[in-house]
Amino acid sequence: MAAQHEHQFKVIGTRPIRHDGADKVTGRAKYGADIHLPGLLHGKILRSPHAHARIVSIDTSAALAVPGVKAVVTGQDFPEIEDGLLQIGENMVNPRHLSRNLMARDKVLYDGHAVAAVAATSPHIAEEAAKLIRVEYEVLPHVQNVLESMRDDAPILHPELRTGGTPDASDSPTNIANQVRFARGDLDEGFAAADLIVEKEFSTSMVHQGYIEPHNVVAQYNADGQSTVWVSTQGPFAVRELCGGLLKMPPSKVKVIPAEIGGGFGGKTTVYLEHVALLLSKLSGRPVKMVMTRSEVLRATGPTPGSHIYAKIGADKDGRITAAELRLSFEAGAFPGSPVAAGSMTVLAPYDLENFQIDGFDVVVNKPKTCAYRAPGATNPAMAAETVIDELAEKLGIDPLEFRLRNAAREGTAQPAGPQFKRIGFVETVEAIKNGEHYQSPPPQSADGKLRGRGVASGFWFNAAFQSSATVSINTDGTANVVTGSPDIGGSRASCAMIAAEVLGLAAEDVHPVVADTESIGHTDTTGGSRVTFATGMAVYEAATNAVAILKHRAATLWKVKPEEVVFQDSVVSCTTNGHESLSLKQMAPKLPRAGGPVMGSASVRPRGVGPTFATHVVDIELDPETGKVDIVRYTASQDVGKAVHPSYVEGQIQGGVAQGIGWALNEEYFYDDTGTLRNTGFLDYRMPTCLDLPMIETILVEVANPGHPIGIRGVGEVPIVPPPAAIANAIYRAAGIRLQELPMSPAKIVKAMLEKDA
Amino acid sequence: MAAQHEHQFKVIGTRPIRHDGADKVTGRAKYGADIHLPGLLHGKILRSPHAHARIVSIDTSAALAVPGVKAVVTGQDFPEIEDGLLQIGENMVNPRHLSRNLMARDKVLYDGHAVAAVAATSPHIAEEAAKLIRVEYEVLPHVQNVLESMRDDAPILHPELRTGGTPDASDSPTNIANQVRFARGDLDEGFAAADLIVEKEFSTSMVHQGYIEPHNVVAQYNADGQSTVWVSTQGPFAVRELCGGLLKMPPSKVKVIPAEIGGGFGGKTTVYLEHVALLLSKLSGRPVKMVMTRSEVLRATGPTPGSHIYAKIGADKDGRITAAELRLSFEAGAFPGSPVAAGSMTVLAPYDLENFQIDGFDVVVNKPKTCAYRAPGATNPAMAAETVIDELAEKLGIDPLEFRLRNAAREGTAQPAGPQFKRIGFVETVEAIKNGEHYQSPPPQSADGKLRGRGVASGFWFNAAFQSSATVSINTDGTANVVTGSPDIGGSRASCAMIAAEVLGLAAEDVHPVVADTESIGHTDTTGGSRVTFATGMAVYEAATNAVAILKHRAATLWKVKPEEVVFQDSVVSCTTNGHESLSLKQMAPKLPRAGGPVMGSASVRPRGVGPTFATHVVDIELDPETGKVDIVRYTASQDVGKAVHPSYVEGQIQGGVAQGIGWALNEEYFYDDTGTLRNTGFLDYRMPTCLDLPMIETILVEVANPGHPIGIRGVGEVPIVPPPAAIANAIYRAAGIRLQELPMSPAKIVKAMLEKDA
Repeated sequence: MAAQHEHQFKVIGTRPIRHDGADKVTGRAKYGADIHLPGLLHGKILRSPHAHARIVSIDTSAALAVPGVKAVVTGQDFPEIEDGLLQIGENMVNPRHLSRNLMARDKVLYDGHAVAAVAATSPHIAEEAAKLIRVEYEVLPHVQNVLESMRDDAPILHPELRTGGTPDASDSPTNIANQVRFARGDLDEGFAAADLIVEKEFSTSMVHQGYIEPHNVVAQYNADGQSTVWVSTQGPFAVRELCGGLLKMPPSKVKVIPAEIGGGFGGKTTVYLEHVALLLSKLSGRPVKMVMTRSEVLRATGPTPGSHIYAKIGADKDGRITAAELRLSFEAGAFPGSPVAAGSMTVLAPYDLENFQIDGFDVVVNKPKTCAYRAPGATNPAMAAETVIDELAEKLGIDPLEFRLRNAAREGTAQPAGPQFKRIGFVETVEAIKNGEHYQSPPPQSADGKLRGRGVASGFWFNAAFQSSATVSINTDGTANVVTGSPDIGGSRASCAMIAAEVLGLAAEDVHPVVADTESIGHTDTTGGSRVTFATGMAVYEAATNAVAILKHRAATLWKVKPEEVVFQDSVVSCTTNGHESLSLKQMAPKLPRAGGPVMGSASVRPRGVGPTFATHVVDIELDPETGKVDIVRYTASQDVGKAVHPSYVEGQIQGGVAQGIGWALNEEYFYDDTGTLRNTGFLDYRMPTCLDLPMIETILVEVANPGHPIGIRGVGEVPIVPPPAAIANAIYRAAGIRLQELPMSPAKIVKAMLEKDA
Repeated sequence: MAAQHEHQFKVIGTRPIRHDGADKVTGRAKYGADIHLPGLLHGKILRSPHAHARIVSIDTSAALAVPGVKAVVTGQDFPEIEDGLLQIGENMVNPRHLSRNLMARDKVLYDGHAVAAVAATSPHIAEEAAKLIRVEYEVLPHVQNVLESMRDDAPILHPELRTGGTPDASDSPTNIANQVRFARGDLDEGFAAADLIVEKEFSTSMVHQGYIEPHNVVAQYNADGQSTVWVSTQGPFAVRELCGGLLKMPPSKVKVIPAEIGGGFGGKTTVYLEHVALLLSKLSGRPVKMVMTRSEVLRATGPTPGSHIYAKIGADKDGRITAAELRLSFEAGAFPGSPVAAGSMTVLAPYDLENFQIDGFDVVVNKPKTCAYRAPGATNPAMAAETVIDELAEKLGIDPLEFRLRNAAREGTAQPAGPQFKRIGFVETVEAIKNGEHYQSPPPQSADGKLRGRGVASGFWFNAAFQSSATVSINTDGTANVVTGSPDIGGSRASCAMIAAEVLGLAAEDVHPVVADTESIGHTDTTGGSRVTFATGMAVYEAATNAVAILKHRAATLWKVKPEEVVFQDSVVSCTTNGHESLSLKQMAPKLPRAGGPVMGSASVRPRGVGPTFATHVVDIELDPETGKVDIVRYTASQDVGKAVHPSYVEGQIQGGVAQGIGWALNEEYFYDDTGTLRNTGFLDYRMPTCLDLPMIETILVEVANPGHPIGIRGVGEVPIVPPPAAIANAIYRAAGIRLQELPMSPAKIVKAMLEKDA
């Protein structure tokens, strides 16, 4: 499959008005919390106030006695789920862990862990009734720091847990759920060849995706066992599968209708409330709505892990990395399953290395179970590796971008995880920054009591593919509809419509994109991992191509010629033999009834040929030495975006990812007190950057077409979050001479580091 | 395409529980009037009190001044539409006529003709405000009888109208909009060869489909020109097309979401409120809901025509029909377009005739524009032909069923409209009745002051095909979804699911049927003409077959063999070469991610090979000579149903059609007073039969497979309404010796006929 040449595109690469724009600006787009049904009940969850405790007893009688309360459930009301692996798309989920995370049975494992749920005729009654549920706890010692949790004497969260999963009689209980290693060459030889070695330890805090819309669901369980779930989710098919698994019913009995989504960033790829609402609906015989508060979102959904990273990298005086050793310890949260493997696979991927060893540890702690967050697992170790590399470059007297170019992965380079890269654009992203106006401008100078500096960093994300389905049908007026099963979290309505438009020779606005429910389109995996424009886009491309093939058959029927005698180009079917008769799609559409029937193409795909993505960022910061506050003065992100389908959306993805990376770098953190209680459970205390905190993020789109996609598409949404913490740390060093090793780089830590440096 | 043998079917022919049963009995199915949106306005229409009048002026200022009124429209606010033909599926509509029927511009043409519409914050405000609209009328003479309307001196409804459409300078204005003729052989020769000729005139009254759910719509016009219409309709794609045509916007800008439908029977195949609500929404900027009252439904939607039928049929003493001459004059209503052509093509279709001439006249009258109603146009002339044939048989001393057999159309017989029949089952339906227990039982005898008799009659409907689209996708648990664009008015969810189940080797309940909106599935023509199980069923059959082909490819990928080495039977994929590996669909489904991706098949079809349908009915009646009231004592309907997919639904269609035919025969009629005002505008006065009026309708399913369909399907829903009036008239004759020539055969007419007979 060869990528088309750019000049062939008429729609791809343009910036049409988004199809969902009017709906969203006029408030007509329906989000999950907008769904209303007759007889609707409202559900609320009672949550653990303890970080770790045994549940001795639960008495729900007082709650059940409240007028208006229609159902109360605790962990005992849900099916007991066996350990195992539930295949969700191509991800594996342990449904027993999932079940116990979403409703505790014998133990609570973190502050906010769900213990019981109430459905009542109003949310207020449900909330008051939940408070009347008496839970007797036996509080246990807790552990929240990843290194402490790995110690032999740590409080054990899951007595049955053994490293690697399967219990072995010889193993002891542990909080280390899994361990991965990626290695090549000889570390000792590599470090021996180094002229300079930098060795450091880093720690990063648990941070949340911070989507504006809290989790929500409306669930209706029908008397015949068929049920319907309306929910803002990235993965309606995953919701169907997980509800089926958790309630021990066939997944196809659960119809999931995806509502509009107010942000997800990976955090809406699993279930929290859905099966609870379904069970409450089953018991009450009425539909049940549940909407989380912000506090519930922060306490009990899936942030991305805090981590400890050990990094040791050596380089020779020519600036070639000779060896790299990394150890990543990730907080899985209360149940196994951090993205430490992804972090291990991505952290050194921009570089062509002969000797390296990367170890990853997945560690349970008494915090909420983590979930995916933009390039899951990649940002934490990038903070370590990219600041160590900066230090190596600086100490060797080599420009940090030049240092990266000397070590850069190229087509044919073996990735840390093994396979060789096909055509990639890392070098191009570094050169785009190196030669760009921002980096070429004089570095910011400290003055007027402000310290100023410039930093750079790079990042990598492999992007995902998985499964997608699409149909493309032609309307009677010659326009088209494209139906997919991919909720639109970042512009996939536009990109899918544009891909169909390109194939059909239509204008983008002449293609109507539809996001269908789980019964109305073939299986489609979760929106995430920047897979949709690539994989769903591939399904759309194939469905549109199939539609064109049918269209040619129709024209052949109309003209009484063979389909091979018909060509389709620029939205026109022409006969090559029959006096060159030709009809535009708009002319042909009304003739279809006489030509054999309507035109609809479909495709279900699991494409290979995913195109990985690289980014290189440069940032200028200003630091107030008195307060420790860092301001982002200028930020430029270059990225290999493959072919940019809708450049404005690509720029938006980059800007959004950078903004989140800046928040992660400077302010965001889960703050637990000594009792294991989360203390910052709202956006006033959990400090995300607002537009007032950020400059305009400049973007440079480097378009190195993905050879594995007919349009050259790579995913674009993940990697922008990877470089910012390291780039900012490197800029802070250039400004203030301090190398920070802990995220967030909050004012207090900066002041402390500067005092230590001065001391 | 050869029909499969019956023994091959595992699902087709069984009676599974309907998929929409729980939703409907629990009240959860959403009908059009159940739709609610934030900021919803309510629209009401002001209607003409006159049968024929010129609109001198309309003053809406008082209505607009009412607090809560957000928009008022009259005919002038709609685009002026040119004469023409709008292609709706394979039907042609004159959009100018349609536009003026739905909102009068210069003239009102019937009692109830829409004149203006108001949108307000409540339906009550809208109704009150509509009453404040001042319309000055110049009342014109009106004509409501079809024969009177055909006279040269009749009041002319449309001065520009000429017979056949195109005006010709030499033609005079007329109310005869169209004329059709079907003829063969030599009438004079035929009648000369007859030993007996019966010549009679008949009249039938306008009757309504009587669906329980009135017309409704919720329309939302968005600022970007995209709009959405929720409506109970048989034809969401037709609604899209018609709204586009009437408002001069591209049809694809109108997304139509079909709500559940509470009966249609042909009456919900066009638009009445939809474009009015859209325009009100456009003007007000808010969604608008409109729901008709029963009075509006009866006064201003599309009933089936009243008619005048002249019939002259001759036969020789052996009971062979030698010649038939029929003249059908149908009330089109206020605008051209009655089903007189269909009536002319169907009336003699059960018979193999050498000499005949059938003339049809489409005549405008000052009554509502007619619309389709179950076997449109066929019942009116069947009342004539089938009673004349009964009289011929009786007078020739031949059993009326034997008489039909001697003249019966068979495979190879040329239809009145021309083409030869393929394999048909008319003879089988006559024999099924003739040999059945009902007809074989002793005829009912008059006694105890009650007159009793038995009558038979036959009927024909050609059934329709048109265009349909479907997708079939496999769920992760091995069940399937089938998506069509056909609203389910008579069991098509079940039949489509069963067809997919048959192809996939699944149980019917393991297939989830979905009725999609106009953007979510390929073009699909209106549900009607008994086309859905045939044509949409064909699309489902092909889509499922395509899904099986993809499934085989997936299995081949999994087993690393060629697709040709994989077979699929009884829901199991097996490899014929690779040690006969095999997997059931349920086993294969979870392996699809590793086998190349999901499985979804699609198809868009316009099938040929429609299978026409015949019915023969027998009825026993009891007549009270004092009151003239007729009771149906026993009723048996035999019908060639092709292959019955879900026999219970087929029986239900037959029973429903017979019940409607009985109402048409005995009670139902549009009753206009001398001023042209409809006097029976509710179900108390417009008398439809209830279950208390009817016996259990017995059914005999004659299954003569349609050779033009892979499963042998014919449409089944139309023809049951055709024989009842004639069968009952024939039974009344056998009971009371009177041959009635006017529908309904109400008590007053029966008493009058008996008095005349006695006189």
